[in-house]
Amino acid sequence: MDYSKFITSTPDFPIKGILFRDVSPLLADGQAFKSAIKEIAVFAKSVNADLIVGPEARGFIIGAALANEMGIGFQPARREGKLPGEVVKESYSLEYGENILEMEKNSVKKGQKVLLVDDLLATGGTIEDTRNLVKRLGGEVVGASFIVELSDLKGRDQIRDLKIQSLVTY
Amino acid sequence: MDYSKFITSTPDFPIKGILFRDVSPLLADGQAFKSAIKEIAVFAKSVNADLIVGPEARGFIIGAALANEMGIGFQPARREGKLPGEVVKESYSLEYGENILEMEKNSVKKGQKVLLVDDLLATGGTIEDTRNLVKRLGGEVVGASFIVELSDLKGRDQIRDLKIQSLVTY
Repeated sequence: MDYSKFITSTPDFPIKGILFRDVSPLLADGQAFKSAIKEIAVFAKSVNADLIVGPEARGFIIGAALANEMGIGFQPARREGKLPGEVVKESYSLEYGENILEMEKNSVKKGQKVLLVDDLLATGGTIEDTRNLVKRLGGEVVGASFIVELSDLKGRDQIRDLKIQSLVTY
Repeated sequence: MDYSKFITSTPDFPIKGILFRDVSPLLADGQAFKSAIKEIAVFAKSVNADLIVGPEARGFIIGAALANEMGIGFQPARREGKLPGEVVKESYSLEYGENILEMEKNSVKKGQKVLLVDDLLATGGTIEDTRNLVKRLGGEVVGASFIVELSDLKGRDQIRDLKIQSLVTY
């Protein structure tokens, strides 16, 4: 399926100079959303993923749907201060601004094969820090899946050693 | 299934006096997560839901998994400033602190039957404001589902006219 017709583009959002790609119309269309998730599940199985991890917030949407499709677990990488237990944390640089991501210490089992998912691969900072969190928790990162990849921003270079899937590339 | 064993309780988080109930262990267990979502899907079908809406951020996890299970769409109610298009907004009072939720103007079709979902029903402020957003967009709110309900906080009183499902009640 060509998912690009379900992705909107808004110039100068959230700040001037950024062309914001939004997957909301894809999520709103039950058939297209399900089809995209099924396609990601095929990739996830090919890399033997047994846990899905996605960063806050849109990574939760793609990741939880994928975990449900596969009948496996999902764990969130959250913004600072949201998790109650002991955490590991990484600072990431977004395409615009900075942030801190955290995961709970017991959220990944040693040796679990983790697929990272997010709606969008831009500079790769978010996914790189999510990978570092999973590795520090003892997980094996087996790949990364995205609905949209912004190839100009070269995020793929950050995670070149991983198997990478993106459904729509700009 | 008894889901309570997959829910942890942390005293005085995020602030003193709050007993934080965390569904993360449920999400981590693929079988329990899938079972919970299937149970919510039975309820969602009984109220003829054709769109799932969940508030940021844990509502995304439950809502997107449910939408995938049912093959219908999901739309997020987001924190202020995250959505690129024209939005409607509501201010909500959390059990602790305040926040603003937004939805895009075209995110719900007139007459769509919307099930609201979140991980937890506390005072009901978040779900009440999510309902108001959906109503202002022309959607018909047909029910609300939660993994956990904190009955002491009487959130159910805020949405008494809706059909309500909660899997674990404290």
